[in-house]
Amino acid sequence: MPRWESDAQGRLERAALDLFETQGFERTTVAQIARSAGLTERSFYRYFPDKREVLFAGNVLETHLAAQVEAADPGLTPTEALLTALGTADQVFRSREFLLRRAEVIAASPALAERDLIKLAGIADALERALARRGVEPGEARFLIDVVLAISRRATSRWLAEPDATFADLVARTAAELFAAITPPAAHH
Amino acid sequence: MPRWESDAQGRLERAALDLFETQGFERTTVAQIARSAGLTERSFYRYFPDKREVLFAGNVLETHLAAQVEAADPGLTPTEALLTALGTADQVFRSREFLLRRAEVIAASPALAERDLIKLAGIADALERALARRGVEPGEARFLIDVVLAISRRATSRWLAEPDATFADLVARTAAELFAAITPPAAHH
Repeated sequence: MPRWESDAQGRLERAALDLFETQGFERTTVAQIARSAGLTERSFYRYFPDKREVLFAGNVLETHLAAQVEAADPGLTPTEALLTALGTADQVFRSREFLLRRAEVIAASPALAERDLIKLAGIADALERALARRGVEPGEARFLIDVVLAISRRATSRWLAEPDATFADLVARTAAELFAAITPPAAHH
Repeated sequence: MPRWESDAQGRLERAALDLFETQGFERTTVAQIARSAGLTERSFYRYFPDKREVLFAGNVLETHLAAQVEAADPGLTPTEALLTALGTADQVFRSREFLLRRAEVIAASPALAERDLIKLAGIADALERALARRGVEPGEARFLIDVVLAISRRATSRWLAEPDATFADLVARTAAELFAAITPPAAHH
């Protein structure tokens, strides 16, 4: 278990995932999650503001990626800094098994899918601030972040399906796929 | 005014935008929007399921883009089909003035920003179905769509700021910018 995850938080997350899988997100209450984790409802709210947030682990990924971008070699281009940061994201990933089950639960619940989109928007905002501190203009920053988040999504799917690949390799492979897919603009005329 | 926009719908949209600007999204009621457009509340609900939807013009863009992708030359690569479809999106755009004001109102309201994300996810789903009918595998389709939606966002910002450029040219320029930003993966080693 990663250092940042207290035991209580991890127990609440696993209890919530179990309950969402067996009885659905809508029919699960915070009280049930807390009870199933052997904790009080009050403890639940020390870790998560609401029931939807329990599968989203606070701002761990957002904080990690923004810090990595800020710490990246100043000589890297914005895209290189973003891809280098992304390549280390598996340091804060949950286990494949947890993430696979979590993805199914999120896909089955519009409320969770909505929260997922909002969390992604929060990551994009944090990365935009990190690139701004490297002197990247906001419009360009947002564009490159949108593209890198597309790479992240694709690399994460692959990581869940390919236990032997490292995440950094999958990020590089996906960036290469994008490079091949974007034909030079001259070909469009 | 585009052909598909009935006069009543356009009046409701403009009335809503005016009210959201002057008194905020939260404090505006459907009854006020309808009254300001000279219509009944019941009429409002013939066009829009709720107050949030009034700035999102139904599924016009989604339907347009999906149809363009399906109709694109079968010889085009998936990326080319997506970019060609995107280049025609200005056929269903509102006026620059409406879209600029709309963007500010959406940025000021979390409820509207959330709906904006959900509409974008709907467009991605429709494009994925359109690419599936061209034989593109879902994982690859979703990746290319995510990238093309990033291009769309950047090109739309430029279109709002540059009255003399055509949208198709801005899409091509933004794709070229992406091509230049994604250095060949060998450079990462």
